[in-house]
Amino acid sequence: MSRVLLTGASGFVGAPTLDALVRAGHEVHALAREPGRPLDGVSWHVADLLDPDAGSLLRELLDDLAPELLVHLAWYAEHGKFWAATENVRWVEASLALLRAFTAAGGRRAVMVGTCAEYDWSRSEPFDEQAPLRPATLYGAAKHGLHTVAAALCHQVGVEFAWGRLFFLYGPFEAPGRFVSSIVLPLLRDEPATMTAGTQRRDFLHTVDAGGALAALAASDVVGPVNIASGEVLELRDLAQRIAARIDTGQLRLGARPMPEGEPPALLADARRLHEEVGWRPSLDIDEGLDQAIDWWRMRLAAESE
Amino acid sequence: MSRVLLTGASGFVGAPTLDALVRAGHEVHALAREPGRPLDGVSWHVADLLDPDAGSLLRELLDDLAPELLVHLAWYAEHGKFWAATENVRWVEASLALLRAFTAAGGRRAVMVGTCAEYDWSRSEPFDEQAPLRPATLYGAAKHGLHTVAAALCHQVGVEFAWGRLFFLYGPFEAPGRFVSSIVLPLLRDEPATMTAGTQRRDFLHTVDAGGALAALAASDVVGPVNIASGEVLELRDLAQRIAARIDTGQLRLGARPMPEGEPPALLADARRLHEEVGWRPSLDIDEGLDQAIDWWRMRLAAESE
Repeated sequence: MSRVLLTGASGFVGAPTLDALVRAGHEVHALAREPGRPLDGVSWHVADLLDPDAGSLLRELLDDLAPELLVHLAWYAEHGKFWAATENVRWVEASLALLRAFTAAGGRRAVMVGTCAEYDWSRSEPFDEQAPLRPATLYGAAKHGLHTVAAALCHQVGVEFAWGRLFFLYGPFEAPGRFVSSIVLPLLRDEPATMTAGTQRRDFLHTVDAGGALAALAASDVVGPVNIASGEVLELRDLAQRIAARIDTGQLRLGARPMPEGEPPALLADARRLHEEVGWRPSLDIDEGLDQAIDWWRMRLAAESE
Repeated sequence: MSRVLLTGASGFVGAPTLDALVRAGHEVHALAREPGRPLDGVSWHVADLLDPDAGSLLRELLDDLAPELLVHLAWYAEHGKFWAATENVRWVEASLALLRAFTAAGGRRAVMVGTCAEYDWSRSEPFDEQAPLRPATLYGAAKHGLHTVAAALCHQVGVEFAWGRLFFLYGPFEAPGRFVSSIVLPLLRDEPATMTAGTQRRDFLHTVDAGGALAALAASDVVGPVNIASGEVLELRDLAQRIAARIDTGQLRLGARPMPEGEPPALLADARRLHEEVGWRPSLDIDEGLDQAIDWWRMRLAAESE
C-alpha cells in the first residue's frame, strides 16, 4: 500500500485506474483539471499540467505529499485529432517536468503510458516489447521520445520506471467516433452501422481491465515497457457482429465502407510480460466487456432522452 | 541569405557557428544568457531558455522576428557533468518549447544538434546516420528523445528539420578537462601530460569547422540526421604526439593511465552525408587545427599570467 499520485484521473483510462488503485488499498492523490467524484481513499488536486505556472505548484504539491508512486496518464486524447496535434509535444514537455519534480521529491517508482503506435505497423506478428519501434504519427513519436528520455532519467536517479503500452480500448465514456462506439451508437439509435469488411485483426481491452493492469503494473517491480493488452486476437467484423447480436435495433453493414489505404491487417500484442511478469490477466472476456459497455451506452442514451 | 535565430551563440560550438552564419551573409539573431561581442550582421537577444518565464518572452521575440531558420545549439555542457545531469531533461523540454514557438511563428527550417553518444557504442565500424541508436547515457538518451519528437513535430507542420550529430571537438575555449586541453595545458605549463595508451580511434573536428558545417547544414535543404565530423580516423596517441611535437615544454606520458573499463576502441563517423549531400568539407586538417588551438591556449595562458 503506497501513496500514489495519479494524473488524468478523470479520463477514459484514468477513472478505472483510480478505482483499481483504491481497491488495492493505496492512498491516492488524484490530479485533474477538475475535481472528480468524492471517493474514500482519494484526495483530489486540481491542476492543469500544461499551465506555464503548473511547475511551481506541482513542485510544492510533490514536496508536500512525497508520493512513492507516480502513475501518469494525463495526455491530449481528443478523438480524431490526437494523432497529429502539436499538443502531443506540449505533453512531452509537461510529462518530463512532472517526472523531474517527482524524482526530486523522493519518488520511488513511476509508471507512464505509451501506445501500440510506437511499434512498426508494417509488421503483422504480435508485438512483444522488444519489437522494432517506428512510429508513423506525431502521437506515436511523442510517446516514443518521452519513453526514451523518461526511462534514462529514472535510470540515472535510481527511480524504477515502467512504461505501459496501450493497445485498443473500449468501455464507458468512449468517444463517439472510436470503433466500438461507432457500432454501438447507431445500432442503439436504430440506424445502420457502417464499417469496412472488418478483416483487420486487433487487440481490444476493456478500460476496466486497462485500469486494473496499470494498477497492477504500478504495484509490481517490473520495469521497462509492458504491453497493456488482452493478448487475444479479434477481427473487427467479429467484434461488430458480437455487438450487433446484443442489440435488436439498427443494422450492421459490413463492407459498406472501403478499407482505408495502408490500413494495417494486424495490430496485435504479445501480452506475456503483463500476464507472467506482472502477474495480471483480464477480468472480463470480450462478451462480458461488451455487455457492460453496451449497458452503459443504453443508460447514457436513456438519460439523454429524458 | 536568411534571417536566422541562433541559440547558444556564445558557446564552444555556438561562437564559431555565429561567425560562419555571418560570413554566409545571414541576418543573425543570437540568443544567449549574456550578450556577446558586437558584430556586424548580428543582433543579440538576452534570454535564459530554462527560465519558466522564457516561454512568453520567446513567443513574443519569434512573432516579432519571424525567423526563417532556427539553429538551436544551447544545451547543458558542463564538462564531466553533462553525461548524467538532469539538466539534459530540462533542455529537452526547453528545446521542444522553442521549436513549437518557432514553427508557430512561421519558421521554414530548423537545425538542432545531437551527439555521437546516440549511437550504439559497442560497434566499431564508422557510424553512418542509419546506424543503430542505443544511447548509454542520460545525455545521449535526451538528445535521441528530442530528435524523435522534434523531427515528428516538424514533419507534421511542414517545417524542414535537420539534426547534426556532433562527434569529438577541439578548439579555442575548450574546457580544461577535455582531451585536447588535457594534453595541451600541462605541456604548456611544463608539466607531464598523462593519458592512456591512446589506441582509441576517434573522429575529431575543430570547432571552427563544426561551426562551418552547421552553417552549411542550415543553408542546405538536407533533412534528417547528419554526422558533423571530419570522416578521418585518428588514434588518441597520434593526436597527443602531434600536440607534443608542437610544444617544447612538459612531457607526454603515454600509458600512464589505465584504459577505462568499457572504453570503446573506436568511435568514428561516416561523414559522406555532410561531404556529399550538404557539400561541405573541413577547412582545417588536424595539423592546422592543432596549430590554431595551441596558439589560442598560449595567448590565454600569457594573458592569465600578466
